[in-house]
Amino acid sequence: MVDILHRVGVRTTTPEKVYDALTTVEGLARWWTDDTKGNGDVGGVLEFRFPAGGFDMEVVELRPSERVAWRVVDGPEEWIGTTIDWDLRQDGDYTIVLFKHQGWKEPVEFMHHCSTKWGSFLMSLKSLVETGEGAPSPRDVRISDWH
Amino acid sequence: MVDILHRVGVRTTTPEKVYDALTTVEGLARWWTDDTKGNGDVGGVLEFRFPAGGFDMEVVELRPSERVAWRVVDGPEEWIGTTIDWDLRQDGDYTIVLFKHQGWKEPVEFMHHCSTKWGSFLMSLKSLVETGEGAPSPRDVRISDWH
Repeated sequence: MVDILHRVGVRTTTPEKVYDALTTVEGLARWWTDDTKGNGDVGGVLEFRFPAGGFDMEVVELRPSERVAWRVVDGPEEWIGTTIDWDLRQDGDYTIVLFKHQGWKEPVEFMHHCSTKWGSFLMSLKSLVETGEGAPSPRDVRISDWH
Repeated sequence: MVDILHRVGVRTTTPEKVYDALTTVEGLARWWTDDTKGNGDVGGVLEFRFPAGGFDMEVVELRPSERVAWRVVDGPEEWIGTTIDWDLRQDGDYTIVLFKHQGWKEPVEFMHHCSTKWGSFLMSLKSLVETGEGAPSPRDVRISDWH
């Protein structure tokens, strides 16, 4: 079992804006992918689409301004059944975002790629909250021919 | 045991430039940190310094255009004894860089931070080879008050 872990600090006075960007279709569309649909309530399914495919996430847990947890219910085979946790806390001028994508069966090459992409999308989330402008797909940073 | 894994594709016709950027003091200084010194031969120690501290890496293995391996011999306690592997291969228009920072004892919060920073420095390496311009420390992308 291997995990993708990341941490960024978003310069903002409360975790509220980060929480909104993780829990509303409008917010998610502004840093991860333009093509976001679905229901962000607990038990709902969020549908994220990219030029090369997509992911369906069931919303497993929501604790306002503290925690968001998803389970992947559809997408690439390696992703199905994995979980994605977002833990937020305020630390001075920053909302600290701790990110975990857990439950990968094997550290396949695709997992290495997803780790780098998640890091890059976290920078997009940070930028969205700090400047009002993210870099969601299809305007995301391409890191290889896998996008 | 938990690992930091990343993958980027560098648009270039052979792995040579990436290999040079990973094995020469001049190359390393142009994407990781300006303040790079030491000996990049097998058995030598490379010294990387940042405003907040630094790392000493023993060069464990060099296979031209294929593989570079380091072992951390000095730096933050969590890093000491960990290993960093760079595997390169040419795939069409890209040199694929597979990165592994292995041997972390615990998935501490600092490890999450280092994972995101490594992703960002890999983008700096990619940019250096593709455009001639990297973003080494102290001109690196700050991701929190941990830098």
